Amino acid sequence: MELVKRVRRGDHAAASRSLSIVVNDEKDSEILAKEFFKASGSAQKVGVSGPPGVGKSTLTGRLIGRYRADKLKVGVLMVDPSSSISGGAFLGDRLRVMEHATDKGVFIRSLASRGMIGGLTYAIFGAIHVLETLGCDKILIETVGTGQDEVEIASVADTVLYVTTPSMGDEIQAMKAGAMEIGDIFVVNKADLAGKDKAIADLKAALGLGHSAGQAVKAWEPPVLAASAKNGEGIPELVRELDGHWKHLKASGEGRRRLKLQHATELQFWIQRRVIKSALERVTDKILEDMVLRKTDPASIGRKLLKA
Amino acid sequence: MELVKRVRRGDHAAASRSLSIVVNDEKDSEILAKEFFKASGSAQKVGVSGPPGVGKSTLTGRLIGRYRADKLKVGVLMVDPSSSISGGAFLGDRLRVMEHATDKGVFIRSLASRGMIGGLTYAIFGAIHVLETLGCDKILIETVGTGQDEVEIASVADTVLYVTTPSMGDEIQAMKAGAMEIGDIFVVNKADLAGKDKAIADLKAALGLGHSAGQAVKAWEPPVLAASAKNGEGIPELVRELDGHWKHLKASGEGRRRLKLQHATELQFWIQRRVIKSALERVTDKILEDMVLRKTDPASIGRKLLKA
Repeated sequence: MELVKRVRRGDHAAASRSLSIVVNDEKDSEILAKEFFKASGSAQKVGVSGPPGVGKSTLTGRLIGRYRADKLKVGVLMVDPSSSISGGAFLGDRLRVMEHATDKGVFIRSLASRGMIGGLTYAIFGAIHVLETLGCDKILIETVGTGQDEVEIASVADTVLYVTTPSMGDEIQAMKAGAMEIGDIFVVNKADLAGKDKAIADLKAALGLGHSAGQAVKAWEPPVLAASAKNGEGIPELVRELDGHWKHLKASGEGRRRLKLQHATELQFWIQRRVIKSALERVTDKILEDMVLRKTDPASIGRKLLKA
Repeated sequence: MELVKRVRRGDHAAASRSLSIVVNDEKDSEILAKEFFKASGSAQKVGVSGPPGVGKSTLTGRLIGRYRADKLKVGVLMVDPSSSISGGAFLGDRLRVMEHATDKGVFIRSLASRGMIGGLTYAIFGAIHVLETLGCDKILIETVGTGQDEVEIASVADTVLYVTTPSMGDEIQAMKAGAMEIGDIFVVNKADLAGKDKAIADLKAALGLGHSAGQAVKAWEPPVLAASAKNGEGIPELVRELDGHWKHLKASGEGRRRLKLQHATELQFWIQRRVIKSALERVTDKILEDMVLRKTDPASIGRKLLKA
């Protein structure tokens, strides 16, 4: 298709249009998604995860800068909570990323996290394939920082970068449990604040705990780094670890294993989106009324909808 | 079926067995789920939501106590993060709930939040129908407190109780945006701590903001209460508001509207679980290899799996 060819040649406008079609499931979305899938598969997808307020966007901005200094092409996907209330605040935080918006070697796109049938995960896959076709060497995927998208990012990214700060309170600590399992590289950002050394020690201790809890020993030992994204400190070291993890993935069977997990997940969400969409289009108010009155039940209606 | 009859008669062992079958999708799960659906539909389902560490479990324990004093039968569903690391800590927090575990008028069950095909939401619906059949008048559903399950609870519960504390930091504030939209009643717990009045004022301001942001005015004005679950303060007032909301739901069209939303969601997850499960069982390593090598794509494989 013409649009795919234009994206292959590095046309940002064509990539932007393609992303809208694929993400919003517009006309010809499926044919396009197929083409993009086939043209894709070479970039390192880095998930930038962590609780709200730890400086993920500033760090992402710094990573873009480093990659650009090495003449690499960078794609950025920012997961946005679609709430009308918080929207503004999140956009404000993302100024550091948007500094790069006019650079022709950087392609940035926000993805709304709500209201998508088949979920955000499917949309992220579609977007990744477009960015890979565009020729991006690195794709940074920044999450909102809820527990759920942390788990999801592990099925989408090759490398999960988990960001925290010295000042994270106990409430946040409780949420970190899932992160211990998915993080490949940990960064204590805002390392100019008090408590950096304790935060690093705590993280290392927690990581040791996680690995002894019945899990097989990983060949990759997740490093814990300190950084100050605001001041630009610790960024070269972080990029070195990101490159190291990418090499590790390629040299070991782990890269292939993760790619298969990503494909299995994408397949699952593809099925989910198709089936759910066509089934839900046939749910009428009468059906719901009958359920309220207990004249029917989910299984009986579900079977009918699937047969149709 | 015999098991359903026993649950109807108030047999806790039968309810416990039924819950395992329905939640884990064991043999006969579908037939059972149908029966429980038909026998259910009268309890007030209260979602107890809010960030980790705000005292949701202690508050839930207090609510159980009040409802029991009024001779009401109470069901409690606790969503547990299945992480091996955090599991222990969460159980510890839940001692206040477990105090009631030996009371014959209380039925408590934990639901693991990960690894379920078709998601936690479907399992919660199944569990609710069993508890309603058991004769529970009130069903309290306590979430973990990630952003995602807050959104989900709104499709499951009749009344969403959102819990916070005076000491919640800015990071948590950012996460609250979604809560503003789903909360029917707000509680500032740990009201013995400094900052209670400011927290209440902030919440009220944020709620005002939410409502003016292009949304229709609700007939129900969400109250903001102070409480100290630890000391038992503010609990009678909270129960009064919970009863008030239940009456409001019944008197207005809102209760019926929410019930329909719950049924539509349950139907969606039923379809999802059935379809995904049978499709994924046919995904082989060969298929994933072919995807890695770009010999095929999600849409082509997905269509084949759905046809089979």
